[in-house]
Amino acid sequence: MKKIDGTIASPKGFVADGLHCGLKRKKKDIGWLYSEKQASVAGVFTTNQVKAAPVIVTKEKIQQQKLQAIIINSGNANACTGQQGFADAKEMCQLAAKALAISADDVAVASTGIIGQALPMVQVKAGIELLQAKQDKEPQAFQEAILTTDTCQKVSVYRETFNQFEVIMAGCAKGSGMIHPNMATMLGFVTTDANISSSLLQELLSELTEITFNQITIDGDTSTNDMVLVLANGLSGMPEIQKDTLEYVKFKQLLAQVLTDLAKSIAKDGEGATKLIETIVTGAKNSQDARMLAKSVVGSSLVKSAIFGQDPNWGRILCALGYSGVAFDPEKVQIYLAETLVFKNGQPTLFDAAKLSEALATDEVKIQVILAQGEAVGQAWGCDLTYDYVKINALYHT
Amino acid sequence: MKKIDGTIASPKGFVADGLHCGLKRKKKDIGWLYSEKQASVAGVFTTNQVKAAPVIVTKEKIQQQKLQAIIINSGNANACTGQQGFADAKEMCQLAAKALAISADDVAVASTGIIGQALPMVQVKAGIELLQAKQDKEPQAFQEAILTTDTCQKVSVYRETFNQFEVIMAGCAKGSGMIHPNMATMLGFVTTDANISSSLLQELLSELTEITFNQITIDGDTSTNDMVLVLANGLSGMPEIQKDTLEYVKFKQLLAQVLTDLAKSIAKDGEGATKLIETIVTGAKNSQDARMLAKSVVGSSLVKSAIFGQDPNWGRILCALGYSGVAFDPEKVQIYLAETLVFKNGQPTLFDAAKLSEALATDEVKIQVILAQGEAVGQAWGCDLTYDYVKINALYHT
Repeated sequence: MKKIDGTIASPKGFVADGLHCGLKRKKKDIGWLYSEKQASVAGVFTTNQVKAAPVIVTKEKIQQQKLQAIIINSGNANACTGQQGFADAKEMCQLAAKALAISADDVAVASTGIIGQALPMVQVKAGIELLQAKQDKEPQAFQEAILTTDTCQKVSVYRETFNQFEVIMAGCAKGSGMIHPNMATMLGFVTTDANISSSLLQELLSELTEITFNQITIDGDTSTNDMVLVLANGLSGMPEIQKDTLEYVKFKQLLAQVLTDLAKSIAKDGEGATKLIETIVTGAKNSQDARMLAKSVVGSSLVKSAIFGQDPNWGRILCALGYSGVAFDPEKVQIYLAETLVFKNGQPTLFDAAKLSEALATDEVKIQVILAQGEAVGQAWGCDLTYDYVKINALYHT
Repeated sequence: MKKIDGTIASPKGFVADGLHCGLKRKKKDIGWLYSEKQASVAGVFTTNQVKAAPVIVTKEKIQQQKLQAIIINSGNANACTGQQGFADAKEMCQLAAKALAISADDVAVASTGIIGQALPMVQVKAGIELLQAKQDKEPQAFQEAILTTDTCQKVSVYRETFNQFEVIMAGCAKGSGMIHPNMATMLGFVTTDANISSSLLQELLSELTEITFNQITIDGDTSTNDMVLVLANGLSGMPEIQKDTLEYVKFKQLLAQVLTDLAKSIAKDGEGATKLIETIVTGAKNSQDARMLAKSVVGSSLVKSAIFGQDPNWGRILCALGYSGVAFDPEKVQIYLAETLVFKNGQPTLFDAAKLSEALATDEVKIQVILAQGEAVGQAWGCDLTYDYVKINALYHT
């Protein structure tokens, strides 16, 4: 597996493009991503009971296990928009399908942005017409068009060989952004020219989402619009991947890597964040316990504030482990902060706090927790809690 | 039931006092609260798996269903202090018992402050000697000695008559304060001269804690030292309260009121807070659902930031309801913010955002959520998320 420079359209047969149609003031706000031929598809969707129209429409679309295109917009989430919202989401698919001369059944839709306001369909229609007319395809424009308050594009591309076949997998995502009056949305799209069935792809995506996207937290809030879609069009020419073969294992590692990269880049670009916090729990009874413990640490406002302040605050880490809901013996926990052992035998160690505080002046902080209960490992990622988080989320007025 | 001016020592036969012994730099840091005679006792304790020594010692003490005194200190939480911590907590009880000439079995202990450092027993001993020698009893000094970063004393006192007997119930608490390198601690003490058995008192405290203290959230973190103790010495002269009588109902209302007052005052004085946020959910299937929904709203960092910024952000409220884990139909939810209907029929109403923003410029903001599932009601309290929260918790360095 080799990380390469590339875009969401790097795998064979994929095209991506984006532009500005007027949903946002100036930035790109509409785009599409499609494959030359129908692709296998898998998706995971928000567990929030309040689901935006595009989420419900797309969830239904992928039931048929084939997809060819995704039309996206930012600037308006098409959430809490009633029956009109559903009609608009479906019409977006139809318009994109017509422009691409494919079936509307094969087009999914994703939206992010303001909620509770009707999607301005005049702009959306004009945007799709412009996309159709546009000659130069710019995959980076798609990667940009999905963003809201993200400070950078989030892209991850790898190359891997399966026997003599070269396969590329690419992912792009948007993270935690809010536009009044709403909430963070997480969108992720993965493309590959590998050859795999939709059912196997879905199995892998569901399993890997648990240890990647579901292990990041910015502020604990789960949005109405969250969605991750994977398309595999098979154009690498490789034979179809069968379960529990060497190819299957390779493919799983590849997908895990792309999803992990995207998850970490979302955590790192959390609103107002200055640092990525990575927590690794080892020696747990099972991996679910390990993940719950790790997520409790990166989700603690007190830990997040301490890391922002470069405060080697082992007490808050221990406390977050303690209320995680997972049973463990505090006397047998070891905690490493930025590679320094800070807690052991039920008590803090005699670490050099000033020196450790200096070591926290970095943009990635690692917390390692070692239990003595078993062999299981779990990871989670988050970011620090800063003045800017409060500023971004408090000072946007109606 | 009548709210009166008073202190934790207002009920008949209670004495409370406090002073400075050197655990903190200048402020009062040691105190005791005792009854002329043994009292019935009930307690609730942190559910964090990492429990401080005083929590474990006191939990054991109240098993015998009688208590006469509580010795407290702030400035040091005696948590993560190993075997020495247990020995110190027990010695504190013994020293106080000796000074009061009562049995050490009848003395509980509570501590709050820095964790992971041995309790400075020289200061504690001197403090208890000074308490013993002190002539003027100052209940407010006790109320002050339990505080850490709290900005005010939290006290609630009521008078009620049971037939011809006048009963007083008083409570004091400390809220969410952090002293490096640790975490919030919540302490609550309630005294009354009512006559009730320990077992009935425990039943009531456990039940009422669920709808009061367990329904407040500052930042979601649960500390190692949280504790609420209730003492009832019966010195009002009333006959013992029997279950399911009129007196029982009256007593329950009284206790509910005092616990609610204390819980709300803790939420309102959350670190850096400028506003109390109260959420009331009505029309839920059962009261547990109602409480979970209400708590999800007051616990959302996005809602908390929006309230700080006076942003009438109904979307974040709806979103927090959506991920609460409680099933409901978003189409049938009504949300009132500061008495204005902002969401109905799956869509926002046409409210005047500028006017509503002005209405949020107050120190208590009410959010009402109406479901259409049943009759159950639940409440929760929290505070806004401000720059000062981040400042207090980030910028205290080792």
